[in-house]
Amino acid sequence: MEKKVTIYDLAKRLGVSPATVSRSLNDHPSISLKTKSKVMLAAEETGYRINKFASNLSLQKSNTIGVIVPKLNSDFMSTVLSGIEKIANDAGYNLIISQSLESEEKEKFNTKTLFESGVDALLVSLANETKTYDHFNTFTNRKIPLLFFDRVINIPDCPTIIIDNLRAGYDATKHLLDQGCRNIMHITHGLNRSAYYQRYVGYKKALDEVKLFEIENLLVLDQFNSREIDSVIAKITASPEPIDGLFVTNDTFAVYCIKALLKAGYRIPDDIKIIGFNNDPVSEVINPELSTIEYPGYRMGVLAGQSILSHLNGSINIESADQILLKHQLIIRQSSRKTTN
Amino acid sequence: MEKKVTIYDLAKRLGVSPATVSRSLNDHPSISLKTKSKVMLAAEETGYRINKFASNLSLQKSNTIGVIVPKLNSDFMSTVLSGIEKIANDAGYNLIISQSLESEEKEKFNTKTLFESGVDALLVSLANETKTYDHFNTFTNRKIPLLFFDRVINIPDCPTIIIDNLRAGYDATKHLLDQGCRNIMHITHGLNRSAYYQRYVGYKKALDEVKLFEIENLLVLDQFNSREIDSVIAKITASPEPIDGLFVTNDTFAVYCIKALLKAGYRIPDDIKIIGFNNDPVSEVINPELSTIEYPGYRMGVLAGQSILSHLNGSINIESADQILLKHQLIIRQSSRKTTN
Repeated sequence: MEKKVTIYDLAKRLGVSPATVSRSLNDHPSISLKTKSKVMLAAEETGYRINKFASNLSLQKSNTIGVIVPKLNSDFMSTVLSGIEKIANDAGYNLIISQSLESEEKEKFNTKTLFESGVDALLVSLANETKTYDHFNTFTNRKIPLLFFDRVINIPDCPTIIIDNLRAGYDATKHLLDQGCRNIMHITHGLNRSAYYQRYVGYKKALDEVKLFEIENLLVLDQFNSREIDSVIAKITASPEPIDGLFVTNDTFAVYCIKALLKAGYRIPDDIKIIGFNNDPVSEVINPELSTIEYPGYRMGVLAGQSILSHLNGSINIESADQILLKHQLIIRQSSRKTTN
Repeated sequence: MEKKVTIYDLAKRLGVSPATVSRSLNDHPSISLKTKSKVMLAAEETGYRINKFASNLSLQKSNTIGVIVPKLNSDFMSTVLSGIEKIANDAGYNLIISQSLESEEKEKFNTKTLFESGVDALLVSLANETKTYDHFNTFTNRKIPLLFFDRVINIPDCPTIIIDNLRAGYDATKHLLDQGCRNIMHITHGLNRSAYYQRYVGYKKALDEVKLFEIENLLVLDQFNSREIDSVIAKITASPEPIDGLFVTNDTFAVYCIKALLKAGYRIPDDIKIIGFNNDPVSEVINPELSTIEYPGYRMGVLAGQSILSHLNGSINIESADQILLKHQLIIRQSSRKTTN
């Protein structure tokens, strides 16, 4: 039996990328007529058989995937986006991205804009403010694939990709307890979103286990903004029982805390132990280096991209993949290590 | 004479934002019918006169502005984007963003995608790889406003917004010379783009002025990637004449250099003085804090947004604003200060 010719064979023969071959066969606008002709000719010569189903589908496609994120100014989000981008580009799709800036009104506007621009699918990480979800009906009513990642909501037929935030919050808090902390402040924001709420539940769970539930010490910030740092330090220094641990659900803000606490004369980790969240590059720039929870952003992006593309290619039904739960990892560095006296 | 009623008066009267009033008057899709009716009623009652020209124009508008950036994973770029976003949102426009990942092919694809999605204007910061510019003809041929920022090219009728990169490169190098450096390595990338090339010219100019042109020491990296740091340190340690200054055109990479040099036993600033570029937040996280060039990203975004919107509103002709040159600023911190012995 003759070996079936693949797009990889054609790519090798022509000295172009598999993506170029795929796009040419799908009559994609980014490929020149000259290249398309060469690919078509080679396909004919080698007996390559075009996948008619995918090919027909592509006629109605914009080959564009829309993404709505809360904010672009985080390493975590740009890492997720590069994962999505990698998968999308390899398949000949382009991403267009918009940011909700944590506003429900703007998220609605973004949803409309991306719908009107004709995206083939939409990937969303929700704004903190968002409390209603009707704006996504434009997509669900028309069966345009819709997927939520990181900050999610359960809508029928829309898959979600998250980490186990409760477990991650538990692991971070348990680690501080294991290092001897007994008065741990939890600094977070956006409890309206399950991602943050679940981390808070994990924090409480770890305290409850060691019968420390009465010392719950929750500080919810409007944003994780450097302008909020003074009030945080004021609250720490004013505490009647000295705070000996901080669990901050954002590495960048945890780094601001370290800088401000050092300036205020605290020793880290001797006086206060600190753990962040995300494993952003900045966590290894600060001295002492910051313990954190590794959040697999790139893998989340890759999986989000693959889920949506599998659906667009008709190879799996997206509804069957209800929820993907990614593993996080506790990363222990100097900022939270028990000091040996 | 009666005071003219403005959208701010209407906003105050109705207890909504000026943006909501503006969008309602322009029949924007993101505003509910109920709100639109309330605004229209208030406009009638107060005698507010709608700007007919802007209002008519809006009938053919998507109220969307497209932005193409090289990469989203930098503080600088997210700062520029938040400046553009601020201005666009206030005027009832939405942004859709795509990244070229420094690839010319992808930039072409992005341009096509954003054109097909019907954006009213396009703002571009060019990919390092891009050497031809015909893909922008789709926009220029149809007189759709096109503006370049940061990484620019001169195309007739397309304004540009940049800083004086030559002067900035000169200032950074001159500062190191003033601190006593005599063997300064310039670490950069993308000399194909004028932004980087001009900084390099500034570096050379400063050396030439003190007759040190023979010590030009240029290191062009493929990317500013943490994987490249080992080869950089190897090059520094192998130098027959000790390197005593580094001018790195990216703060994040400069921070990697500081960490790696400290680890290799160098004292900073005693043995090597370092200056970065951009004034990213990470420059104040590292110890010693990093000297740098303040790049006014937010202001660049605001000006880019204002230029494009003025044109879309018909209030100025974009062609008249050929080039906007923003002021940079030298920021001196511990990493480059002359040590007093």
